[in-house]
Amino acid sequence: AIIVYRLPWTWKCSKLLMKFIHAGLNTIAMILAIVSMVAVFEFHNAKNIPNMYSLHSWIGLTAVIFYSLQLLLGFAVFLLPFAPVHLRVALMPIHVYSGLTIFATVIATALMGITEKLIFSLKNPAYSASPPEATLVNCLGLLLVIFGSLILWMASRPHWKRPPAENAKILRLNAATPEGTQVESTMTNSSNADKSDLRLNTEAARKQNINFDEAGQRSTM
Amino acid sequence: AIIVYRLPWTWKCSKLLMKFIHAGLNTIAMILAIVSMVAVFEFHNAKNIPNMYSLHSWIGLTAVIFYSLQLLLGFAVFLLPFAPVHLRVALMPIHVYSGLTIFATVIATALMGITEKLIFSLKNPAYSASPPEATLVNCLGLLLVIFGSLILWMASRPHWKRPPAENAKILRLNAATPEGTQVESTMTNSSNADKSDLRLNTEAARKQNINFDEAGQRSTM
Repeated sequence: AIIVYRLPWTWKCSKLLMKFIHAGLNTIAMILAIVSMVAVFEFHNAKNIPNMYSLHSWIGLTAVIFYSLQLLLGFAVFLLPFAPVHLRVALMPIHVYSGLTIFATVIATALMGITEKLIFSLKNPAYSASPPEATLVNCLGLLLVIFGSLILWMASRPHWKRPPAENAKILRLNAATPEGTQVESTMTNSSNADKSDLRLNTEAARKQNINFDEAGQRSTM
Repeated sequence: AIIVYRLPWTWKCSKLLMKFIHAGLNTIAMILAIVSMVAVFEFHNAKNIPNMYSLHSWIGLTAVIFYSLQLLLGFAVFLLPFAPVHLRVALMPIHVYSGLTIFATVIATALMGITEKLIFSLKNPAYSASPPEATLVNCLGLLLVIFGSLILWMASRPHWKRPPAENAKILRLNAATPEGTQVESTMTNSSNADKSDLRLNTEAARKQNINFDEAGQRSTM
């Protein structure tokens, strides 16, 4: 769900469809999280194990609560057509930061859960004797860290952002205003400048496009 | 060490001094990490506990290895005056990403270590009976997550970046080139535009400054 906006095939979709995929995948993940939490509580109750005593459970529940808030806020602000543009622009960096932080916290929670499970389940031979199961599950934990790192890398690369095709339109619409004209002239007057200057100009234009992109939530309304 | 470049008081220092603070704090942290790793191995050996069997140890050792690589690369590329500018520009996003990912991984490792310690040390009453020690240490673990989230928030806010005072100089130096002149004119010709246009222009200029900032590693050479 996090990298929906980073995959080249989604760049062909409309922005609204991308949002639906992002929201849909996160809704499925939320449902699975609730199902697994119910399973945990029922398992604990059936086995007479106390609930919510471990750090794993505390941080896990905190993450799920923040995740549900994130999902509700995301629906209300970014998917429904009621929120004004300035609110969307103000909340987008918080939405992105919260999403990535919740993702990292969930991975940390999973690692704590794996640690607990290995200690409690491996008794003869014990976890400390490194039976094959322990090595296998340790490898799975390491893969989880690698997976998390890759997703965070993909999500944080600015040049993996959706290309500014849509924003060119916005720029062209803005060309009527004095500011737009200046942007246009900055981009076109550089024909006599050398290659590296040109690159700097288009780089500046790209950054400005990203800026427009972040503000351009109105395209779904 | 991560947020050295985000604190207003360091903005008054030279860039080189900031780098020395960043590198110095990280070197101290690395020394402490090595000391604590030696302590762990000696503790295990003294108590006849196997080394390196747990997921905590695997991920922790991986993080320490990557941290030492990060430190060596940081010294070689960003502190010593030999690396060319294009190499610094190319490696800076990787350096920032690696630093933040290692930081998050270290917090996850600490949480796993806390979980292990609570399970192994609390026997009578057990961890699952939630004695006061368990609640206290769980709270410490939760504070660790909050601390990590705050640091990542501070490190990832673009407007908490060092203000582009130094870059104004670079811009002025570039004003002799056609590209520089255009940037200047984009900023000054907007006097007849309305407030919001002005804000967009300065925002574009700020983004361009950040761009110059990222490329402006030469100021330490």
